[in-house]
Parts: sequence; C-alpha cells; structure tokens
Amino acid sequence: MSDYTLFFNPMSRAVIAQWAFAEVGVEPDLVQVDWETRPASLTDANTMGKIPTIIHHHKGHDHVVTEAAAICHYLAECEAPDLLPSPEERANYFRWLFFAAGPLEAAITSTSMGWTPKDARQEMTVGFGTLERAVEALDSHLLRHAFVCGDRFTMADVYIGSQVVWGIGFGTLPKRESFGAYAARLAQREGYRRSMGALSGGGEDT
Amino acid sequence: MSDYTLFFNPMSRAVIAQWAFAEVGVEPDLVQVDWETRPASLTDANTMGKIPTIIHHHKGHDHVVTEAAAICHYLAECEAPDLLPSPEERANYFRWLFFAAGPLEAAITSTSMGWTPKDARQEMTVGFGTLERAVEALDSHLLRHAFVCGDRFTMADVYIGSQVVWGIGFGTLPKRESFGAYAARLAQREGYRRSMGALSGGGEDT
Repeated sequence: MSDYTLFFNPMSRAVIAQWAFAEVGVEPDLVQVDWETRPASLTDANTMGKIPTIIHHHKGHDHVVTEAAAICHYLAECEAPDLLPSPEERANYFRWLFFAAGPLEAAITSTSMGWTPKDARQEMTVGFGTLERAVEALDSHLLRHAFVCGDRFTMADVYIGSQVVWGIGFGTLPKRESFGAYAARLAQREGYRRSMGALSGGGEDT
Repeated sequence: MSDYTLFFNPMSRAVIAQWAFAEVGVEPDLVQVDWETRPASLTDANTMGKIPTIIHHHKGHDHVVTEAAAICHYLAECEAPDLLPSPEERANYFRWLFFAAGPLEAAITSTSMGWTPKDARQEMTVGFGTLERAVEALDSHLLRHAFVCGDRFTMADVYIGSQVVWGIGFGTLPKRESFGAYAARLAQREGYRRSMGALSGGGEDT
C-alpha cells in the first residue's frame, strides 16, 4: 500500500495531482471516482466531494489535502524539496501559485459561465478585473521567464502549467505566444507525458 | 528604510497584509493608494494594480508578492518560521489556505454579484458548488478545531481569519456559531487589533 491515496478520474483535474505525484516520484493508490457516485471515502475526506483529493497516510495519521494547488505544493514539501523555491525564487513561486488558483481561475470560470463584470466598480469587486487583465499579467511574466521562478522548473509550474495547457486546449484562455512556448517546454517533462499528455478531452472539476 | 514596501489603503484588503506584518514583527514602509490614482510604482510591480502588493527589498533585489494569501505565507517563510506549519500541520495549513483563496473566495464573490450556478452541471464547473457547500466545509473544520491547524495559531489563520471576520462583518458569509467563536479567538491577538481591529467599514479589494 502506498503512503498516499489519490481520488481520481482521468477526465478531471485529478490529472494535475497525477502529474505532481510523477514529479516527486511517488505512486499513489488510485480510487476511481465517477461523476454520479462519489465513494463515501471521498465525501468523508472532503465534504465538497471534489477531486483531486489526496490522503497522506503518515505515522498513523491520515492527512487530507484538497485543492489542486495545495496538493502540488504539499507533495513537494513532503517528498521533493528540490522542487520547492529557493529564498530568491519564493516570491514568484507563491505569487503566481495563488494568482493562478485565485483571480486567474475565477476569471476563466466566470467568463466561461458568461458572468462578466459590468463596470469598473464590479471589476474591483471580483478581484480579477477582467479576464484580459489577468491574462496580461501572466503573459507578461511568461514572456520574460522560461518558468514561473525563472530558469528552473519548480512545483509551481505543475499547477500554473496545467492552467495554461488546459486554457489553450479548451479555448478558455486567449491565445498568447508565451503560453504556447511555455506549454511546449512543459511537454518535455516525463511526468507531464505520463499524466497530462494522456488527457485527450474533458478536464472539468467535479 | 524598511526591507519591505506595502501598497496600502486602510479600507482595503491591504489590512490583511498589515496584520501579517504585525504577526511577524516587521514594520513595512507604507505607500498610500487611492482608488482613483494608482501610483506608477504599484502598476510597475503589479500590472493588475491590486492591493495588497508588497515589495521585498532583499540583497539588492526587489521581490514582488501579490495576492493576500501569498503575502501572508511569504512573510512567515521569510520572517517567522514559527508561524509555518509543522509536518503534521502542513495538510490543513495548505488545504485551507488554498480553499479560502480559491473556492470560498469565488463563492462569496459570485454570490455577492448575483452569479449563481443554475444546475448541478454548472455547480461542477464553478468549482465551489454552492456558497452553502463551501461554507459547510469550513464550518465543519472550525467546529472541531480552534485554529486552522488545530490548537495553535499559524499564518494560515491570518488569511482564513480575515475571510471569516469580513464575511461576518459584511454579511457575505452565512452566520455560523463556529465562525463567531473563531473570530473572537482571533480578536485576542495584538496583531489583529493593530490592523483588522481598526477597520470600521469597507474591505473591498482594489
């Protein structure tokens, strides 16, 4: 039995966690989750019933981690310190991790739902302004840096890279040259090919 | 001159960063930001023009951190390791930090904008399901734990606590006994009183 359980569906964001596991060289036990019937072990661990959700079986305790970005970072902390940022890389690592999990994700989702701020005041309230402005922020960073933290791949690239790759694939992000080039760099990684590379469609969260 | 610059407005979420600075015992230089005119130094650092934004002047480099949750965690990493989670606390720390910055924030904002998922499929797409479900998840955790990581205050409580305190104050979170008790515990902290405690209204992000 692995130290980790991953609640999984190959057509979901659980693939992001699968990529993170591949990067840290750990094979989790998979519990398959269908859209219709969520196993009780999942809803016990996460009342939201969302995947990815992981359980870390550690020294007699079961630690539950939810939220794809949290899972990525948690796995690096526990299993692969070399994928964590150096003191000089920290600012970019955490800034863009929370940017992608917060305003960028909200901008993409709201836009795909047809929810658009109507005026400057609403743009202020939603926190992301407009999708264009959020995209511009990430684009200007990736134009100047090969990876989130600069020259080097870190765990932040698993999460932010997934957002970019999905955004391109499903057309939920506007096209940007920097996004395509970044996705091509990420596709070189073996962990990517063993997880995200296998995804031919879907990608919806549960 | 301080090692840190904080772009600030007392009626904004920059107060969360102010609380985090108080917890790590660092006094940043404040650059006041009005709603109408954003200083160029802010838009240079953060094209989104949002506050809080901080600049860490460190060994000849200027490191920019945006996103309130990222700023809280960054300050703990740099200045106060005792506010970081132990290995046993890590899962809760990162899970709830990203939960509050992602689905909970999205649920609160969408609801306040009148944007509500219409059916089960839309609930799946938005990632937070419904505000009720997101609230339920946090409520069930805070019913069983005094703080995010258990018995002990950590930096995660600054960010998640701010969400809860604001949610109560502005009525954007449904009332829960656990939220009120948690807010009362947080109000005991000196850092809270010197920042959040002074906030008599507002709280909108820029």
